[in-house]
Formats: sequence, structure tokens, C-alpha cells
Amino acid sequence: MTEPRVSSIGDLDLSAEQKQLIASVERLTRRFTRAEFLRCHREGRFPEEIWQELGRLGVLGITVPEAYGGAGLGIQELALVEETLARAGVPIVLLVVSPGLGAIVVSRHGSEEQKRRWLPGTATGATKFCFAITEPDAGTNTFRIRTMARKVPGGYRVSGQKTFITGIDVSDHMLLVARTSPLDLAHRTRGLSLLVVDTKAPGISRTRIDTQVCKVETQWAVFLDDVFVPEGDLIGEEGRGIRALFDGLNPERILVASMCVGLGEYVLDKGVEYAKGRQVFDGPIAAYQAIQHPMALAKAHLELALLMNRRAARLFDGGEAAGPAANIAKLAAADAALEAFDISLQAHGGNGFTSDYDLLDIYSFLRLQRTAPVSREMILNYIGEHLLGMPKSY
Amino acid sequence: MTEPRVSSIGDLDLSAEQKQLIASVERLTRRFTRAEFLRCHREGRFPEEIWQELGRLGVLGITVPEAYGGAGLGIQELALVEETLARAGVPIVLLVVSPGLGAIVVSRHGSEEQKRRWLPGTATGATKFCFAITEPDAGTNTFRIRTMARKVPGGYRVSGQKTFITGIDVSDHMLLVARTSPLDLAHRTRGLSLLVVDTKAPGISRTRIDTQVCKVETQWAVFLDDVFVPEGDLIGEEGRGIRALFDGLNPERILVASMCVGLGEYVLDKGVEYAKGRQVFDGPIAAYQAIQHPMALAKAHLELALLMNRRAARLFDGGEAAGPAANIAKLAAADAALEAFDISLQAHGGNGFTSDYDLLDIYSFLRLQRTAPVSREMILNYIGEHLLGMPKSY
Amino acid sequence: MTEPRVSSIGDLDLSAEQKQLIASVERLTRRFTRAEFLRCHREGRFPEEIWQELGRLGVLGITVPEAYGGAGLGIQELALVEETLARAGVPIVLLVVSPGLGAIVVSRHGSEEQKRRWLPGTATGATKFCFAITEPDAGTNTFRIRTMARKVPGGYRVSGQKTFITGIDVSDHMLLVARTSPLDLAHRTRGLSLLVVDTKAPGISRTRIDTQVCKVETQWAVFLDDVFVPEGDLIGEEGRGIRALFDGLNPERILVASMCVGLGEYVLDKGVEYAKGRQVFDGPIAAYQAIQHPMALAKAHLELALLMNRRAARLFDGGEAAGPAANIAKLAAADAALEAFDISLQAHGGNGFTSDYDLLDIYSFLRLQRTAPVSREMILNYIGEHLLGMPKSY
Amino acid sequence: MTEPRVSSIGDLDLSAEQKQLIASVERLTRRFTRAEFLRCHREGRFPEEIWQELGRLGVLGITVPEAYGGAGLGIQELALVEETLARAGVPIVLLVVSPGLGAIVVSRHGSEEQKRRWLPGTATGATKFCFAITEPDAGTNTFRIRTMARKVPGGYRVSGQKTFITGIDVSDHMLLVARTSPLDLAHRTRGLSLLVVDTKAPGISRTRIDTQVCKVETQWAVFLDDVFVPEGDLIGEEGRGIRALFDGLNPERILVASMCVGLGEYVLDKGVEYAKGRQVFDGPIAAYQAIQHPMALAKAHLELALLMNRRAARLFDGGEAAGPAANIAKLAAADAALEAFDISLQAHGGNGFTSDYDLLDIYSFLRLQRTAPVSREMILNYIGEHLLGMPKSY
Repeated sequence: MTEPRVSSIGDLDLSAEQKQLIASVERLTRRFTRAEFLRCHREGRFPEEIWQELGRLGVLGITVPEAYGGAGLGIQELALVEETLARAGVPIVLLVVSPGLGAIVVSRHGSEEQKRRWLPGTATGATKFCFAITEPDAGTNTFRIRTMARKVPGGYRVSGQKTFITGIDVSDHMLLVARTSPLDLAHRTRGLSLLVVDTKAPGISRTRIDTQVCKVETQWAVFLDDVFVPEGDLIGEEGRGIRALFDGLNPERILVASMCVGLGEYVLDKGVEYAKGRQVFDGPIAAYQAIQHPMALAKAHLELALLMNRRAARLFDGGEAAGPAANIAKLAAADAALEAFDISLQAHGGNGFTSDYDLLDIYSFLRLQRTAPVSREMILNYIGEHLLGMPKSY
Repeated sequence: MTEPRVSSIGDLDLSAEQKQLIASVERLTRRFTRAEFLRCHREGRFPEEIWQELGRLGVLGITVPEAYGGAGLGIQELALVEETLARAGVPIVLLVVSPGLGAIVVSRHGSEEQKRRWLPGTATGATKFCFAITEPDAGTNTFRIRTMARKVPGGYRVSGQKTFITGIDVSDHMLLVARTSPLDLAHRTRGLSLLVVDTKAPGISRTRIDTQVCKVETQWAVFLDDVFVPEGDLIGEEGRGIRALFDGLNPERILVASMCVGLGEYVLDKGVEYAKGRQVFDGPIAAYQAIQHPMALAKAHLELALLMNRRAARLFDGGEAAGPAANIAKLAAADAALEAFDISLQAHGGNGFTSDYDLLDIYSFLRLQRTAPVSREMILNYIGEHLLGMPKSY
Repeated sequence: MTEPRVSSIGDLDLSAEQKQLIASVERLTRRFTRAEFLRCHREGRFPEEIWQELGRLGVLGITVPEAYGGAGLGIQELALVEETLARAGVPIVLLVVSPGLGAIVVSRHGSEEQKRRWLPGTATGATKFCFAITEPDAGTNTFRIRTMARKVPGGYRVSGQKTFITGIDVSDHMLLVARTSPLDLAHRTRGLSLLVVDTKAPGISRTRIDTQVCKVETQWAVFLDDVFVPEGDLIGEEGRGIRALFDGLNPERILVASMCVGLGEYVLDKGVEYAKGRQVFDGPIAAYQAIQHPMALAKAHLELALLMNRRAARLFDGGEAAGPAANIAKLAAADAALEAFDISLQAHGGNGFTSDYDLLDIYSFLRLQRTAPVSREMILNYIGEHLLGMPKSY
Repeated sequence: MTEPRVSSIGDLDLSAEQKQLIASVERLTRRFTRAEFLRCHREGRFPEEIWQELGRLGVLGITVPEAYGGAGLGIQELALVEETLARAGVPIVLLVVSPGLGAIVVSRHGSEEQKRRWLPGTATGATKFCFAITEPDAGTNTFRIRTMARKVPGGYRVSGQKTFITGIDVSDHMLLVARTSPLDLAHRTRGLSLLVVDTKAPGISRTRIDTQVCKVETQWAVFLDDVFVPEGDLIGEEGRGIRALFDGLNPERILVASMCVGLGEYVLDKGVEYAKGRQVFDGPIAAYQAIQHPMALAKAHLELALLMNRRAARLFDGGEAAGPAANIAKLAAADAALEAFDISLQAHGGNGFTSDYDLLDIYSFLRLQRTAPVSREMILNYIGEHLLGMPKSY
């Protein structure tokens, strides 16, 4: 005899406000369904109306201080939103970038004037941030960044190329990492600066990258050709951008982990339901341990990842070192979600490979999260060096 | 200093004729490139001209006895062809069905008249076989087949539904498994018959299944509504079709394994080449053990699968029990190829998710082979029962 | 350049009192070293003096209410103690049984008189509990228990056989699960009772089981031949013992997980230190990703297990449903610890197989925890059924 | 209904003579049982009488040319012997060293006089070889060997330390790798020489290493203090010993793989039998997929490894490049055997940890083969470099 399904162990900690937030996002997903999500993807159309609705619900301002029109909450709440969307099969990656990375970096490192200028719009949904760090030849090696921001009277002239920029087509501001002085091997962390660049500025052009990944945002290669950025759009101190940047990377990992855990639960649910209804020999295939045990193991791994991710968010919001927890959560969440995907697909048999059952598209999305924004290998390097005290291996 | 790349260990056994066969197929793949393969897939177009060329090369008649216009060779050679195509990124699944399953079943179990009627066309490419066993509610349980062939004067009237039928749109004959008497639990292997059905016969209709798998064949749901099949098109004895059928399943597994090994080598090569050229920190990423070791392990597993598969083909051609080897080869080949895919993708970083690098489409193809035509789980059941003497687990 | 080693993420939550407790146990392990532990194991000698010291430190009374001479704390604290001991390489399994299972079951389900009789001695270390549930033919199937407790005037007469009883040789009381009425399939959970049996009672005999597992307790097969147990030594209601029992199983899983996490950290540390000092080609082998990455992954998995286990303990102490968390924690902790063991061993090369480096003995201990007291497979069944709502698979 | 157990796929190739050889070794294992093997291990006693019997059976001379009293067969036959012994639970490691490495190196690279001096005794069992390459600080890095053989009139004076020398206590000759000229980085493969050293020569002392591994040979640290070795005991050319040595390494890998495959089958059989007889809920646990599928997978992996290993042996005997096959076979065999071990242990439940069921001792033996004589990591490096053409990663 089966007991009622237990919700996640991590949910036992949620406050009443957090539960309300989840409920309101769940309501939204009745409108922003998986079918609508797939439609947006096929049409290469960002669901602007849903974004605006998220603005009205206060979601886009979650990480924005109250003084600038936001809710003054933290990554904990934004992660719950992302997780809830993903659990309904409709993750929005731009949440990771705009209210996640963008708003957090500006809130923590922007000047008073910058906050007043950029945060209110971000909170309402009137404006959006995208994020530009990756370059074709730099990969995860920040120190190889070659996009140069040359000091000129009143600002900077920026030239270079960025790639895999999510959602620049629907964004107003681009949080850009550029080099303001040449690489100094003795002080490798210096020389990089954070600039907020107007995505419509003269000198910016872009080409769409055909990424085969099923999501509602599009990816772009961005070319900057002598783009002028006013002095006032430098975040923090010149040449010290990497510190502000690193403050944004943990939220990014946490939000990616949220998407993975949510989508992992979504795809596991599909598999469990299918297996309970599918009969080939005697009884449902859900009663075969070759199906049930891998599903149970995936569930366990999803719960472990979720708990670590909630902890990472709480640490970040509390101003404590969140790096270890955020990295482990991202690693574990991507692994667990792919594990959930694989057994769910296998349980579906041939049907799992048809559009009707909508599974393969989930693979591409989840699989990407094992590689980006930080690869599994770089996370293992991080853990090896920072948690185990081992030497650099690359 | 690197040594020249060693070809597969299994290749050390090849005869001069077999090497020649491989070379002629390799020449064909200069015309039938991966780009052309992808074009066919996108357009839903079967590469008929390549098929005709395979006919001219003698490939389609490999398994057909010389007396009927074929080469009188065996699965060993057909498997080499499939492996060679896949190694170039252009596996043709219809080879598994038409000269594989179809020609072999007819050669071994057809009457003299049937052989004269069907084999020469198969050998030249003038006609093709497709294969229809799977039903929506039967899955891998042959005993749940419900398509009925009712005896009428001069033949059978067949009604029922089949699903996941590969290439019926370009085939002339359909090798069909139908029930000629109701399931008798005391003699479960009886009551199933093999019929060769004209794909254009009145009463046959079909709907395309949107399978998201990147291949040059299409998949169909096929509906049979009182289709007349002449008596003379029954293969073997009525009600004993399962024996003839089982003779075709080992070649199917062997050819699927060939595709996996070949495509696994293809995708691993892509990863190795990319890794050797890609530099992010110091030196190429190919020098990182996090990249190199999983690639080496995938290579080892591919070699193991290839050797077992060659052995399975040899056993089959020699009239020996090929089931254990064919099943293990299929299991190992699908696993190894997916392993090769995954590390190759990971080595590519974000690039691996773009159409330019053409990796994700390989996933769908390879992943399907872990599920179909026989799932990994059914193979493990087979090994458990037949090699280890364990009781039925399902 | 390496940063200082980060302690566990889960430790960020500890109270000052909990940190003090850990520190006092750490001090004890300077005396109760791994060398001393190994000596005890070799001599088959339980470290009684250490047990007494744990009594003086208040550890044995952690789970005993203050009214009966204990600290009135919970599984959270007891788990920290066990984890700390294991982290020093010196896990004491009897802690799982006596202050864990025994004291908790008596505290929660014993009568006032029973608590007064048994708890104070448990808290000081004057007396100990062992636990007898497993039978040779019952395995993890509680319903197949055949040890019978027949009602007689003033008590019960118990006959049967138990196996794998830890530490009966040094214990005074045995918490025994016996059948007081025959199995009734309609009410399978009824008919089992919990009795506290004097380990010296007439009719009890025992044979040592040679378990090849490196620990300081010994394992026994116990034979009960018409053993008299007074009425007053029945815990809870006759025939309803399974409820009380189930209250003890989650603490057992939590404490086992604690041992695994602690010992996993211990063995990983050994591997990290060895790898940092060992040089075969250029630089320490710790800089090879084939060594560092598996170590980092094991570390991540240990952190995930620890966090879930702390959560499980908190849920249990708070009177909430701890089953899901405790089961997942036990599963994850045993897996992670074995993973840590394996890479640590591999990093040691041939040295890892010598007594000098003391690694193989850790394998036997950790590997046992994947099988007992509840097997990995039974946990997956639990998750499948209770968290995923799937049907029974066995 | 279960079919009769199929023997290994690789066995289909065996000649009548090879089958006879297997049968005669099987007969021997009725006397040299697992119980006797364990007794030898416990007493630290090499089974000399069995060795002599192997001599009488012609096994010790398998690899010795007929001209020197041997059978003039090859590694194929010796591997079958080792596999057969291991399949009965009684692997003899000294076979790897004496008729394996020792006799092969002398046969291929010794002078006529040396062959006449050493081979006949090896073939009868009158004398034995042990092998000394590993040094405490060199690990698998041959180029760090520091044992020096200084040229003196009439021979060499050798000083240095070797470790993990198997069976020197029962051997007469030690095949020693020593440096005859300092390391020249431009010609790293030069400067090492192969000497046959009398194990009783003055200046040799040894200390037993306590290896916790269950086998009938013992391991030693060997110290050479100015040991005189006559000129005539140099094998091949001075300074070019590494070539002769490398000829011996593939046989070593093949024979180790044989032991792994055989012992893997042995331990899997134990698990299958136990699972078929063990009932906890309804029916035997062998019918649970959580038990049966991992066993089936282990069986598949053992068959794959066996086939590759047989191929490697055939290549070696045929004078072809056996490195790729031998390395892959060793890797796959150790992995498969450990996989077989683990599921067999798990199926045994708590019983698997008792001496009565004799499982844990098999772990230590099998696990060692993943590390020695060449580690899994070095094999992956070999495959990466030599089969995939990737750069050196260490």
C-alpha cells in the first residue's frame, strides 16, 4: 500500500512567506505551461508577458533592496522561484542573469547613483540585464579575457568579442567583464573591470548561435567595436572588477542548481507516472527494481542537492562564505537531474524518443548545466584546491 | 611524443576481402558525408541514391545466397559495412532491417519459391524490407502481440496496429509478426506467424511518428485493417513464426552494436581532435586527465564491445549459438558509445551544444540504441536467466 | 597557492555547546587513538575504560532525559559524538545500540518504573544495552521473525535464535524483538513484542561470529532456550512492539550515517595527505586530476551526506517525520565513504595494501554499512514506495 | 524455466589440447582447494607440493621452448592455467612471475648458455624466478630507478633497495632491473639493465611486508648491499634492458587479467548460488532485479574482458603488438572482477562479512589488481597516448 508522496525534505524549513511565494509562482505556471514554453522555444520568442507578470508579482525585485523598489529579500527566495518554475517544466534562464547576477552585483557594488538608475527598472521588469564574460578563446579562464576597455576622456572605448551571451536580444544592459590593463602575471586578479554597457550602443553587433538547447532565451555571439561606455557605468573600482564579479558567481551557481533540481523533479515525476501506468508483462513496470531503484536513487540525489542548495542560498544571504556549498550544490544538482532524466527516459521505452512525450528536449537543457556556466571539472578543481588543500591541477 | 593512432584490435583479424569491403564503403562515405546525412534527416528524405549505390557495390546482397544474386557472405561482412558507415557518422538503419533481418529470415526460413521471389530484388536494391513486430501495448513482450491474421480461403486477413516501424514509407515488403491463434499459456511460443506483407496492400495505413532522433529513416505507426495476405507469403510453418523470428534477432543486435561502435568511434574522434586543439590554460586540454582518462576508458570499452561483436557475428555465420555474444555486444556497444559521446561533449564545453559542432544529434541516435530494439534491461534479464541460470525477474 | 582547509559546511550550524562537545570527544581520541582501536580489535577486547570515560563526559547519557540522570539532549548530539570518533578513526558501534537505540526506545516507550530502572545506569555507563532483532532466516523481513515469547504466569518464556548481535558479551540488557502471537497476514505489524532480557539469564547461550570486520565490538549468534522474562520487562503493549521499534530505527540509520561520514573524512584525509607528499613523476600526485577529481567528488558527496544527516537528526529530535531524511542520509553516507575509501586506497598505490598504512581494515567496516543494519536495496525500496509512491517491488 | 549455464563465450575457440590442459588443472584444484589456499595464506606458507605437481603436469614449462625441456607453448596456455586456478579460488601469483615474466624474458633475450642454465629448472619446478623492479620512490616511473649496478672486473656490484618483491623467499633467481649508467634525459630508455641475481648471494637481505592481501605468496622489501653479479648473468645488452623488460610486461598484464577473470567468475558463482538459495520475502532473492541485473552486468563485463585477454595472448604468442589488447584486458578484467565481487557480497547480506562465507579475502586480492603491477591510471595514460594519440598528462 502506497503512502501519499512526501514533498522535499528541504521544504520543511520554508517560512509562510516563502510558501506563499511558491504558490503564486505555481499559479503563474498554469498559464505559462510547458506547452507554451515549447512554443516560445520553437518560435525563438522570449515570453515577455510572463516576465512582466513576474515583475508584477514582485519576483524580479526579490533581490533588489526595498529602497530601490524591490522586496529586499535574497537568493533564497529567487532560487525558490526558479526551482518552482523548473518543477513545472518552464525554467527561465534570464532570471539567473537579470535579478540574479545583475541586480545582486549592482546592489552590492554599484554606487548610490547607479543603484537608483538601474535597480528600479530591473525590479519592475521595465529593463533587463544580460551578462557577458565568456570569450571564444578564454573558456573558463578569466585571465585570458581579451576584450579591452581603453580609458578615454569621460569613459572607455571597448573592443572585443564575447560569446554565449544569453538574452542580449531582449536586454537593455549588458554586465560586461573587460580588461582595463594588460595581464600582470604577478597580480592576475587585477586588470579586469565590470562595465554596464547599453545593449543598443553604437559599435555593438551580434550573431545568433544555433544552440540546439531547448529554452526560451537565445544565445548570441557579441562583437564590440570601439563601443563607448561612460565613466559612470563602471561598477566598483577600475581593475578590481573580479571581486564584484565573484560575488555574482555564487548566486549564479545556486540558481542553476535550482533549475536542475526543479527540472529533475519534473522529469522524474513524468517517469514515475509513466511507469505506474505502463504494463508490459504482469503488473506495472514501476514494480520492477530495474526501474524503481534507479528512480529512487535519483530522488535521493535530488533531495541531497536541494538541501545543499538551500543551505548555499542561506549562507549567501547571511553574508557567509557560500562558495563551497554553492559549488557542491551545482555539481550535485546537475548530476542528479541527469540521472533522473536518464531513468525516466529509459522507463518510457521507445515512446521517450517521440515529441509527444517531450523528454529529449529536457536532456539538452539539463546536460548543458553540467558544462556551463562552470563545468563539472572546474568545480572539482575548486573543491580539490579550496576544500581539500590540494595543488592546482591545470 | 605521440605514436601513430592504432586501429581497432578487432581489425587484426580481418581478411583481405573484408578490408577491401571496408575501403569501398569508406569511399562511398566521401560522397555520403555527415553533412548529407544531416540534410536527409532534416528533409525527412531517405538517401535512395546511396542505397542504390550500396546495391551496386554488392552490399545489399551480402547476406543473400549466391544462388539468388547475392554474395553469400554473412553478418560479419554486413556488420563491417554498418560499422564503417557509422564510423563516418552516417549509419543507415535500414541495413539492419532489409539485408539484415529481412534477407536472413527469408534465406533461412523461406521456401525456394519465396527466396526466388524476394531475395534478388533485396540484393540489388530494387526492393526493400521493413520489419513490424512492436505494438503499442506489447513493448518487448512478444506474447502480448494482438495483431491477428485470420485464415481465409487462399490466405489471411490481418488486422491490428504496429508501431515504431522504420522505413515502411520506402519499403516494398513488410516482415510482419502476427498471431494466427490465440495465446495459449501452456505453449506461449506458439501461435505467432511471420508474414511478408506488401506495404501497398489495401487496408494498410500509416502515420508518421515524430521521433526527435537524428537518422535518415522515418518511423511510423502502421494500421492494418483486414489486409489480405496470400497463403504463399507465410514464412515457415503457421504458428511457429517465433523460431524464424528469433533467427533474425541476433543479426539485429549485432548490426545495432556495429552502429554503436562505429558512431562511438566517430564521436570520440571528434572529442579527441577538439581536445588536442583546444587551449584554455597552459597546453591543450587533451593533456588534462579529467578529459583524457574518460576518453581512454571509452576507447577501451569500445574496443571490448567491437571484439565481442565480431565474435558474435562469426558465431552466427558459423551456425553456432550467437545469443550470449550478440546480447553482450549490443549492451556493451550502446554503453560504450554513450560514454564516448558524453566525454566528447564535455570536452567541447559550450561549443558542444551548438549545431556547428553537431554533437547533440548523435546523442539521440545513440541513446535510442540503449532502449531499442531490445532494452538494456531485457538484455540483463537474458544474461541473468541464460548465462547465470537465475529465475525470471519480471 | 592553497587556502586553509574548510571544515564541513554542516558545521556552520553548530551551537557553542555542540562545539564544546566535539572538542571534548576530540580530546578523548588523543588517548583512544586509531592504534589503540586496532589493538582492541586484534585482541577482541571492548575498550571498557573509554566507555567509562564517555560516561563521565556525559556522552552515554546524551539521549537520556535529565530526570533519569542524562543530559536530555538528542540524536543530534549523539550523532556528533559518533561522527567525531569516526573522524579520528575510532568509531564505537555500541554507541549506536546502547545510548542510541536502547535508551531512546526505553525513554519513549518504557514505563516510569522501567525508565528508573534502566536509564540511569545506561547514562553513567554502569550498564549497557545490546539489540537483538536479526534472525538467520528473516534477514530484513521483520515479519519472518520466529523467536517466540510464550506467555506464562508472571512473564514470558522465550525460545529462538538471533544472529549478528553486536556486543552482547559486554552488555547487561538485550532489547529483544520476539513474536508473542503467530503471524497474522491481515495484520502483519501485530504480534511482535519488545522485551528487555537480562543477558545473563539462564537459557541464553552464544557463539562468536568471525566477522572479518575491523571494529572493537564482537558479533554473536545468540540462542534462547526457554528463557524466562518477567512481565515487567515488556516494553509498551504486547504485540505492538513494532511501533516502539520503528522509533529506534531512524536513530540507528542516523548514527550509522555519522560513522560513515566521519570515517569517510578520516580516510579521505589520509589519501589527500599521502597524495600531497607522494612524488613519482614531476610534482606531487595530488596535482593529477585522476587523483584529485575523484577525491573532490568524494568530498562533495560526504558534505551532501553530512548535511542530510544533520537534518535527519534535527527532524527526529523535533518529533517530525525523520524517515526520508534518515534513509537518504544513511544511503548517501555509506556510498560517499566507500567512494572516499576507494580513491584514497588507489592514491596509496601498493602501500595501501600494507598494514603500515592501515587502509584495508577501513574498507571492511565501511562496506558493512552499505549492507547493514538496513541494506542499500531496502532503502531504495523505501524511497520508491514512500517518497515516489511506487508499488512494492519485492 | 532456466537453461543450462553457458560457459564463457571465449571458450568456443579452445583447441582440444587446451581443453585437456584446463581439465588437468581442474583436477589439481580438487586437491589444492580454496580451503587449502586459505590455510597456506594464514600460515605464510607457499604450496611447494602443488608447484611441484604443476611442474610434473608440464605447466611450469609451458612457455619454455622444447629444446630446454618445456612445452614450447605460449602465454595463451599459461593464461588458461592461471584462469582455471583462479576460477577455483586458488590463484598462484608466482606463475605470473616465474614461468610468465622470468621464462619469457630469458627465452627471448637470454644467450644460449643462459637458456641452458636457467630454463630447464624453471620448467620442472626445480628453480624459480622472482622479479624485482619496484622501488620505494619510483612507483611506476621506471626512469626513477636508483638501484645501481657498478661495473667491476668480471661482473657488477649492485646496491639499492627494491620493494613489493613477490616470493623471493621461495625463489632461486631474481630478475633485477638496475641502472648501469646515470639517467640521461635525452635517452631516458637507456641505462637500465636486466640482471639475474642469485637470491642467496651475499649482500642481499630482506624484510617481509605485511600486506593484508590474501594470497599464498609473501611480499618483501629487498636490500642489496654491494652484491656481486657475474658478467654472464646480464640479460641482453648492457643499458638496453628496458626492451627485454617490456617484452615481459604484456605477459604480466595478461596473466593478471586471467587471475581477475577467473576469480571474478568464482566470486560471481558464489553470489549466484547464494541468491538462488536465499529467501527473505517471497521467492529467492535471485529473482530481484536489484540482485540479478548487477550480476548479469558483471557477467557481461567478465566475458568482454576474457575475450580481450584471450586475444591479447594470441597476439603476443603470434609476435604481434599485444600492448593495446593486454592493457585493455587488464583494465577490464580488474574492473569486472571487482564489480562481480561487490554484487556477490551485497547479495550475501551480513553473511558476506563472516569468515564462513570467505568473501572479504577475495576483495583484497582483486582490489590489488586494480593498482598493481600497473595502476588503472597508468593504463588509461597508455591508451590515451598510444591508442588516441593524446599528449602526456603527467
